[in-house]
Amino acid sequence: MNDTSKNLAIGIDIGGTNTKYGIVNHRGEILQQSEMKTEQFSTPELFVDGLYNVLKPMMDTVPAGTLVEGIGIGAPNGNPFRGTIEYAPNLRWKGVIRLCDLVTKRFNLPSIINNDAKAAAIGEMTYGAARGMKDFIMITLGTGVGSGIVINGHVVYGHDGFAGELGHTTIRPGGRKHWGTGMHGSLECYTSATGIAITANEMLDENPKVESLMRQYSREEINSKIVTECAQKGDKLANEVYLFTGQILGEALANFVMFSSPEAIILFGGVIKAGNLIMQPTKENMEKNLLPIYQNKIKLIFSELKEADAAILGASALVWEIAKNKTIVSGS
Amino acid sequence: MNDTSKNLAIGIDIGGTNTKYGIVNHRGEILQQSEMKTEQFSTPELFVDGLYNVLKPMMDTVPAGTLVEGIGIGAPNGNPFRGTIEYAPNLRWKGVIRLCDLVTKRFNLPSIINNDAKAAAIGEMTYGAARGMKDFIMITLGTGVGSGIVINGHVVYGHDGFAGELGHTTIRPGGRKHWGTGMHGSLECYTSATGIAITANEMLDENPKVESLMRQYSREEINSKIVTECAQKGDKLANEVYLFTGQILGEALANFVMFSSPEAIILFGGVIKAGNLIMQPTKENMEKNLLPIYQNKIKLIFSELKEADAAILGASALVWEIAKNKTIVSGS
Repeated sequence: MNDTSKNLAIGIDIGGTNTKYGIVNHRGEILQQSEMKTEQFSTPELFVDGLYNVLKPMMDTVPAGTLVEGIGIGAPNGNPFRGTIEYAPNLRWKGVIRLCDLVTKRFNLPSIINNDAKAAAIGEMTYGAARGMKDFIMITLGTGVGSGIVINGHVVYGHDGFAGELGHTTIRPGGRKHWGTGMHGSLECYTSATGIAITANEMLDENPKVESLMRQYSREEINSKIVTECAQKGDKLANEVYLFTGQILGEALANFVMFSSPEAIILFGGVIKAGNLIMQPTKENMEKNLLPIYQNKIKLIFSELKEADAAILGASALVWEIAKNKTIVSGS
Repeated sequence: MNDTSKNLAIGIDIGGTNTKYGIVNHRGEILQQSEMKTEQFSTPELFVDGLYNVLKPMMDTVPAGTLVEGIGIGAPNGNPFRGTIEYAPNLRWKGVIRLCDLVTKRFNLPSIINNDAKAAAIGEMTYGAARGMKDFIMITLGTGVGSGIVINGHVVYGHDGFAGELGHTTIRPGGRKHWGTGMHGSLECYTSATGIAITANEMLDENPKVESLMRQYSREEINSKIVTECAQKGDKLANEVYLFTGQILGEALANFVMFSSPEAIILFGGVIKAGNLIMQPTKENMEKNLLPIYQNKIKLIFSELKEADAAILGASALVWEIAKNKTIVSGS
């Protein structure tokens, strides 16, 4: 009878540029972590070899009496039902990659994969702001907008594993065209870091006579970080950018609430560094667009996980989910 | 050891005007049914007495060897967690009504209540088009627009029992004002029977020179039935009403798909009598607004339950759900 609460999990977060990995305990403490370039590996097989070479030394130094229970992987287009990455546009490996099989074979450990936003939601439920919550929605506001939906304590996958693409829901029919999907007026068009930069440039163009600190920067330089800095210095137009972004986000969140009536919506990702600039208008517009039965009771909060750690934590938390869910696990 | 597949359930559907009730077997056959005026009872106690007086003779005639297992109730604002009807705007009994307690005490049988749209979804899953499905969304297009969402085989209630108000999600920000909620551009504003009549009148007003069969009727007379009849006779403007309605509905359904990725969306209610007039533009616009990963795989279908029977069937199906869910049941 070993005490499983002392067991450890490996978390691996695969991004287009970097892969982060670490060893995590049940309390969400990262014992060791590092990262490597994803792009250097021309095939998934070489990538898994590379991972083994850096993780084996870490695994050899875990404290006595602890056991590495399994490997959790967060990846773009990670399919938890099949243990695969499928047609990920930002990775150099094309088609369907049976990553869990490769990882389990190389490490001789159970492995489990999930889409990165869903892994983030599981991480938040395991170690972060959603501890103890059974119904919440995690919205990741980064370069794109992702989401992980938890209902009744379980991540929502839908009939095919593809549920939770809230960034692509239409919130302004006929609105701004998405640079990738070609669809008009999706949430991601406006509330991603990319969308915020577009809004800033549009507002600068449409208000040529309004002074703004943002005019110190070229169109290409302007990003959500610069908009935030300018707004924090009192720049009116930069503040308007967030009022508009929060309006769109708040309206979308109200729709999501009327779908699943979550206890909380948790915002995560680079955009939340804007703090109250984005929180206040989002909350105001969410409340304004809710039926009275939902008003003033849905918590709208920021993630409690450090952004630098969240990816590894989310991936590692998948390992603890193995027993809880019926998700297919390679090697179990 | 009795054979529970021979057991029967009572289904009661409480509407603002009429209450329908019947005795149903496991195959979804209504053995007996009738209805009475809801409004004649000044208190919930008198209503339950009235129900007992009409149902007792029915119960006395059930076939030998069968047992009435319990009573399922579908009602506006029915709260399954508390066994109550809460602040239903269309009923004359105000406030919070502990209906399940009253029913169970009077009938000496377990009782369970649910919101009418959720009961319809459970009925569809038990006896209708959603048999065997674990992930689907039921949209009821009647005077209003209701919904019942099923994920992983369970109705979605959210943290407070209020999930699934998809009729009130905003699909046209700043659009048509809702007659009841005062909110702008909700799905119900456009795709309910009420909304369709408004659209028809708007189109007649905006196109004064366009001939239309609908002009034979006064503003007040025009309803979705008349619009359907005119469109079926080849009336171009009436057809336009459905093209517009289907566009809005299709866009909304696409958003719902990207939330929960259901196997099917099932349409139900008076509006579906329009058949292909509403189905075709809805399907086209849903597909057009979906990410490629969802395209051409979500079934969009009409309910398989007869509208006249569906309310009783849905309510009765709640009884079979008692064992399956942890919903609070009075008297169990």
